[in-house]
Amino acid sequence: MSAEDDLIARYFKPLASHPGALGLADDCAAIAPPAGHDLVLKTDGLIEGVHFFPDDPSDGVARKALRVNLSDLAAKGAQPLGFLLAIALRKGFSESWLAVFTRALGEDAAAYACPLLGGDTDSTPGPISISVMAFGSLPQGTMVRRNGARAGDLLFVSGALGEAALGLAALRGKLPALAADTRERLVGRYRVPQPRTALAEAVRTHASAAIDISDGFAGDLAKLCGASGVTVAIDCERLPLAGDVRALVAAEPGTIETIVTGGEDYEILCTVPPAKADSFRSAASRADVPVTEIGTVEPGDAAPRLAFRGRPLTLVRPSWSHF
Amino acid sequence: MSAEDDLIARYFKPLASHPGALGLADDCAAIAPPAGHDLVLKTDGLIEGVHFFPDDPSDGVARKALRVNLSDLAAKGAQPLGFLLAIALRKGFSESWLAVFTRALGEDAAAYACPLLGGDTDSTPGPISISVMAFGSLPQGTMVRRNGARAGDLLFVSGALGEAALGLAALRGKLPALAADTRERLVGRYRVPQPRTALAEAVRTHASAAIDISDGFAGDLAKLCGASGVTVAIDCERLPLAGDVRALVAAEPGTIETIVTGGEDYEILCTVPPAKADSFRSAASRADVPVTEIGTVEPGDAAPRLAFRGRPLTLVRPSWSHF
Repeated sequence: MSAEDDLIARYFKPLASHPGALGLADDCAAIAPPAGHDLVLKTDGLIEGVHFFPDDPSDGVARKALRVNLSDLAAKGAQPLGFLLAIALRKGFSESWLAVFTRALGEDAAAYACPLLGGDTDSTPGPISISVMAFGSLPQGTMVRRNGARAGDLLFVSGALGEAALGLAALRGKLPALAADTRERLVGRYRVPQPRTALAEAVRTHASAAIDISDGFAGDLAKLCGASGVTVAIDCERLPLAGDVRALVAAEPGTIETIVTGGEDYEILCTVPPAKADSFRSAASRADVPVTEIGTVEPGDAAPRLAFRGRPLTLVRPSWSHF
Repeated sequence: MSAEDDLIARYFKPLASHPGALGLADDCAAIAPPAGHDLVLKTDGLIEGVHFFPDDPSDGVARKALRVNLSDLAAKGAQPLGFLLAIALRKGFSESWLAVFTRALGEDAAAYACPLLGGDTDSTPGPISISVMAFGSLPQGTMVRRNGARAGDLLFVSGALGEAALGLAALRGKLPALAADTRERLVGRYRVPQPRTALAEAVRTHASAAIDISDGFAGDLAKLCGASGVTVAIDCERLPLAGDVRALVAAEPGTIETIVTGGEDYEILCTVPPAKADSFRSAASRADVPVTEIGTVEPGDAAPRLAFRGRPLTLVRPSWSHF
């Protein structure tokens, strides 16, 4: 057995209990997708130094790698089926880093019913690189697109906004006045997203359009509106914010820009026809996911207008870009 | 439009003509797998400085990234359905590198009927990193495993062995006496694998076990035998070698070790019950893929025995490992 095979057997095989993974002992995985269902596909990756810090605990890195993909599946209304993992490690990497990484990944795979089906383990002279490709399924033709929003639809967002972005700011030494417990909570939200898998079915059966907020509320809202050919006016005082975040904004109003552009919320932004709004609220409540109505879709292809405290909010950088 | 969106629109969207890719304009792709079929999944990646040289032409890198995955699908008997691509580039990367990369990738996607369905584009401070996740399909329950070989089955290999490994040796400055045209051919075999997609259906309908040769003939043969609980004796003089490679071995018999351990052949090694052997030969011939019978599977769980010129061939490093 080579060192690579040994690594796979020790750390990854325990995560591959799905029969289609074939114990990671063959060249490919094979799964039978549910009959009458579409397969929903997503890949998103993390690179050390870009998406996580070298000293970030590896259990959080593992959870984030899987969860950012689960968030996309949820926003499209899909239930997880499984995932592939491509990971590149430096020669002489820490086995304890990997042991903690794979244990957490296995816990998440079980918690989200999204088993490891296969993967690729490489060495790299560069930063650790992790790509997850996640598969979901939903009844044929029912994926919730970005482009289905219509004038009159109500705009909803799940959870609370801005927390991951503020957590990242705190890690970078900004927000020095933050209370310790708030800091810990926000950093946790940055390190370990909470994908809204529980809301997927409610989104699928109610929403006309949806997107998960990964690149920032303002930018992802603009993408949804642009794809749908609609616009919207947002009063940022209606955005759902946790109490401690609201206090930060009260003390420093400029914080609102970090909240609406920072990204990594992994909340779902969706539009719902008014006739379905009550049913959507009930379904979300049954799923135990808070949702907040924040605006009404309007005709027109202008960019969404954001206002805060009665004044237009002009954003320097509306959305995250790697280049 | 962000620089990242612009990059995707200019370079990747032209490759995403499959309707399920949604023009790369949504968060996920959605495809309807053929009814009654299993989905076969594979991910394999390339890292600059590990799997390709920084100055390798990027069209070859693109083809290799997709083809190493297609090779696995073919060995399992699956037909390609599509792929996802995760690519990490340095800030300030060369757009001409990417333009050549994506043009070649698009040509291969068309040639192998394996369209781009989605992907992820990241920046990295490290080497270029490329992960392809390829999907194939085949009638339910018919994937050809590694573990189905039975005593009495005949062992076949497609094409000719050792060429990529010798091409890599030539690039590393070994084999200085190589004729220019042979060198060019071997380097081409290293840079641009030829996956045996054309043989997939013949393998699926005839083979009891199969594996693609990526980590070296000796190592991959050992994996197939180990998974099946069988063994085999190989006379290396029966291995299919091109004329110029045969001449190299005649001049320097030690070359046989590079040939059987070097890897990256991307040929298919498979076992076929004797009653199906003639039919397999005919099907391979119709697919225009040469196949050579190289041995007969025996009971027993000893490692495969390789001999050359009447003596046991003892290998220092039977198979490639990254760690």
